[in-house]
Amino acid sequence: MTFDKTTLERVASPADLAASLKIAAGEIENTIDVLLPMVPGDESVLIEAMRYAALGGGKRLRGYLVTEVAQLFGANHAAALRIAASVEMLHAYSLVHDDLPAMDDDDLRRGRPSTHRQFDEAMAILAGDALQTSAFEILADEATDPDPAIRVALVSALAKASGAAGMVGGQVVDIRGEGRALPLDQVRRLHAMKTGALIRYSAEAGAILGRASAAQREAICAYGRDLGTAFQVADDVLDTTASAEELGKTAGKDEAAGKSTYVSLLGIEGARNEARLLSERATAALAPFNEQAAALRALARYVVERRN
Amino acid sequence: MTFDKTTLERVASPADLAASLKIAAGEIENTIDVLLPMVPGDESVLIEAMRYAALGGGKRLRGYLVTEVAQLFGANHAAALRIAASVEMLHAYSLVHDDLPAMDDDDLRRGRPSTHRQFDEAMAILAGDALQTSAFEILADEATDPDPAIRVALVSALAKASGAAGMVGGQVVDIRGEGRALPLDQVRRLHAMKTGALIRYSAEAGAILGRASAAQREAICAYGRDLGTAFQVADDVLDTTASAEELGKTAGKDEAAGKSTYVSLLGIEGARNEARLLSERATAALAPFNEQAAALRALARYVVERRN
Repeated sequence: MTFDKTTLERVASPADLAASLKIAAGEIENTIDVLLPMVPGDESVLIEAMRYAALGGGKRLRGYLVTEVAQLFGANHAAALRIAASVEMLHAYSLVHDDLPAMDDDDLRRGRPSTHRQFDEAMAILAGDALQTSAFEILADEATDPDPAIRVALVSALAKASGAAGMVGGQVVDIRGEGRALPLDQVRRLHAMKTGALIRYSAEAGAILGRASAAQREAICAYGRDLGTAFQVADDVLDTTASAEELGKTAGKDEAAGKSTYVSLLGIEGARNEARLLSERATAALAPFNEQAAALRALARYVVERRN
Repeated sequence: MTFDKTTLERVASPADLAASLKIAAGEIENTIDVLLPMVPGDESVLIEAMRYAALGGGKRLRGYLVTEVAQLFGANHAAALRIAASVEMLHAYSLVHDDLPAMDDDDLRRGRPSTHRQFDEAMAILAGDALQTSAFEILADEATDPDPAIRVALVSALAKASGAAGMVGGQVVDIRGEGRALPLDQVRRLHAMKTGALIRYSAEAGAILGRASAAQREAICAYGRDLGTAFQVADDVLDTTASAEELGKTAGKDEAAGKSTYVSLLGIEGARNEARLLSERATAALAPFNEQAAALRALARYVVERRN
């Protein structure tokens, strides 16, 4: 591993992190734009819906994680951007399906009409389906890495993180928990699956691309795991305290749905404290990387201090 | 390539093909059963819904194609069954989402309530999502093949066949064509995407697993392409002529939806003739394989002569 001066220079303060996040978000946006070109024919509306769902916003936290961890290991930046675009497309598919009337029935996403409101339900279902497929297709493509073992490891890790044992499974646990009082350990497990697994994968993917050693990969996964949980706890706090305008999505949804959250279990201050502890533990997992991981440390602070 | 006496012995007549299909369907069913084990916890209902959608029936045409082509090239049978199970899970996801109220709104599938009727819409959306993920996860797993290049080639081929340029894209073209008179070339293109791509993939996947030469793989793809179209033309004929009881699904759907079909464009006899010609061309593509491909030839006859 080489000492990465660029990272150090780029991210030394919260303002630097904001700038770094913004630059990465722009690069990821461009990469998705290139990976989802418009086509002629009757299926063009599908691509429009996929682009609507995947482009035009979001913090790109998952994609940023991929690129920063990849940079930590000196991996190819264009390849990291493909993986970043792929995980953001996977994330976008989950949001499109979550917003459907049969699920959260949400009309607002990132301050715009949700995909089924902008198009229709059938197109939202299909655009979500095809975004998932595209995520795997991009990872499997030679352009992501010349080594098929790396590409198939990425496919495998993304599938595990996003399927029945990960994101989708967590979504089901979440739905089943509505209107019931879940104990804290079950809320933790739910979020580890629903949002944690994909955030952890994003960090791991950068380490896979960067040919990290087993010990390095384990440290990055520990960081990603705690970062993901910290993000979710902070999200619960924001859902209670922020306005829809600040969030760019409907606020107070969890309480309205009768869901057990970190806030309902720990109180607002208790949840804020939990997020802070998780953020600190995430940072501690980065000890092996010294100053090279400045951006990842700043990110751990950011996820618990953000306002949207 | 070795001369495969087993295939010759197993499939020499329509009755032999029926028996061979039935044996393969049972093996594929068992493989899916093993690959989708029940789990404890609140997410168990998701696995139940996935199992409900993926188990308990269907002709397993796609899975059978994988196993027969794999056998033609002397590939490992257990590995072929994993790929067969994976493509049937992918196919099952597409049926679950197609049947949703926002799509075809169909209450009946394989003679049973469709997944959203047996569970609910949210669970059907999520079970479909997770079945797609599982299909890729199974292909990427070491148990499918020790060579990562083979596994990633399978992932790539399945993604291309099932995404925006294949199955899902075709589904969109189909929806957009409702109530409009499409010309024959557009109906051909629609079906080449919607059902043809995945059937062609199933044949190709067996060739990939079997380390077929480029020429052999091309022959198998040509066979799969024509077989898939023949299957769809025959499906249009059955949709017009068979009863729901025979089909195990709602009959006369295409006409009710105002869709252009091979039958509406060519008439019943014209469509039957087209299916026969396609079946013969599929068979002709198998010329390089002589008697070893007896089962695949019988399958080409079967898809145009079947009654459900």
